[in-house]
Amino acid sequence: MSVVKETNIKEPRITLVGAGPGDPELITLKAVNALKSADVILYDALVNEVLLDYAKPGAIKVYVGKRSGEHSFGQEAINKLMVDYALNYGHVVRLKGGDPFVFGRGYEELDYAADYSIPASVIPGLSSSISVPGLQQIPVTHRGIAESFWVVTGTTASGKLSNDLYEAARSKATVVVLMGLGKLKEIVKLYQHEGKGKLPVAAIQSGSTENEKLAVGIVDTIVEVVEEKQIEAPALLVFGEVVSLHPSFQPIRDFFEALKEEI
Amino acid sequence: MSVVKETNIKEPRITLVGAGPGDPELITLKAVNALKSADVILYDALVNEVLLDYAKPGAIKVYVGKRSGEHSFGQEAINKLMVDYALNYGHVVRLKGGDPFVFGRGYEELDYAADYSIPASVIPGLSSSISVPGLQQIPVTHRGIAESFWVVTGTTASGKLSNDLYEAARSKATVVVLMGLGKLKEIVKLYQHEGKGKLPVAAIQSGSTENEKLAVGIVDTIVEVVEEKQIEAPALLVFGEVVSLHPSFQPIRDFFEALKEEI
Repeated sequence: MSVVKETNIKEPRITLVGAGPGDPELITLKAVNALKSADVILYDALVNEVLLDYAKPGAIKVYVGKRSGEHSFGQEAINKLMVDYALNYGHVVRLKGGDPFVFGRGYEELDYAADYSIPASVIPGLSSSISVPGLQQIPVTHRGIAESFWVVTGTTASGKLSNDLYEAARSKATVVVLMGLGKLKEIVKLYQHEGKGKLPVAAIQSGSTENEKLAVGIVDTIVEVVEEKQIEAPALLVFGEVVSLHPSFQPIRDFFEALKEEI
Repeated sequence: MSVVKETNIKEPRITLVGAGPGDPELITLKAVNALKSADVILYDALVNEVLLDYAKPGAIKVYVGKRSGEHSFGQEAINKLMVDYALNYGHVVRLKGGDPFVFGRGYEELDYAADYSIPASVIPGLSSSISVPGLQQIPVTHRGIAESFWVVTGTTASGKLSNDLYEAARSKATVVVLMGLGKLKEIVKLYQHEGKGKLPVAAIQSGSTENEKLAVGIVDTIVEVVEEKQIEAPALLVFGEVVSLHPSFQPIRDFFEALKEEI
């Protein structure tokens, strides 16, 4: 039996973990188990910090959030940190808001880990794109109303509106726009251009958290309603007939029907 | 103090719960808590039965699965059961595969509960549309490759291909088709019609479970690969350049590049 035994050398590995939309109970069991076994947790701005309490004693917790406008950490810096920590400490959990692959740049991190031959696995999380409308009881699909849903980012790498959004505005899909609040006026113009001024729209801020706020309107009114309700980022937008299923939409429908009768 | 005290009368309530893609660890903490407090659990075919072990002693567990082709329970029958159980037993958890609102007919159940004034809430689940490709490390979005993803059902209420799929095949979005394996040939024709015969495609059976199987190819070859790998329902399809990021795609790329050189 060897007397010299290095018990502290840990195999480097990386787990990309989706933390879900914000409510700390909306994380999976698998994610919690990963957090419990992590030597290092690198977490984002949109992650609920309560989740860090699952970490074992002595685990290192590093905030690598990029807040809108204020890029404290670039993606390259995060990739490097992640690999450095894995090589030096063992199991790194990269904890990301929502799902790692929904505009989360998760694949870039996987790719970087692969360059260093560090084994990496993925634990999906609840994407806000489906779960946040769902918690408001707005279904992204519903028989006879929407046979599909299309999730688009409002903020592309170039800073311009995604070309996909032009196509999405033409489609019959429920369209969910993430990170699009700052571009709401531009997006509204797209829909108006398609003759969809009366299409129902919802804007939901901080879904699943105590700061959750909802604005419901139609394309022609949503900018006003969002201002009135003081909706702020992080927020998502839902364009589609499914929004009319929300109870807040009933008065809007009644208003337009009364208007029609007058004419 | 009243001596006659009816302690057993429970307030009826309904919770729609998403069970996730199949792996019992890919359920949320909130969903587990709902299962623990349920008096009745109504569960679907695609739900992992291990999850029923969270039920408290004496809880009633009812299978209401509709298996492909064999409709043991119609939606109307499920709605009625759900309400009857709530009125008679209290808290009903309606446990559904994936997320309740992604082709899950969840809103129909909410609506039915509302007709009886039974309070209902929703606990979102991991939709297979995002999580199953993600577990295979196929990101639904990736910078420079896909700025959006579009989730479509392969099987509409009418049995025909969804019109949205025609538009989706024309778009640059990553397209995820649920319940589309039986219509693969038709969908392939759509893509070929758009001149997209070389677009990467993945078919994933029973994602996140021990029966998981993967077939990777291009539009022109996927029917053959799916047959060869004996992929069966439940399965989902991913059409898009993001599929090329999967390691299995490398040999396919090499093959086409070798072909190009020969020409």
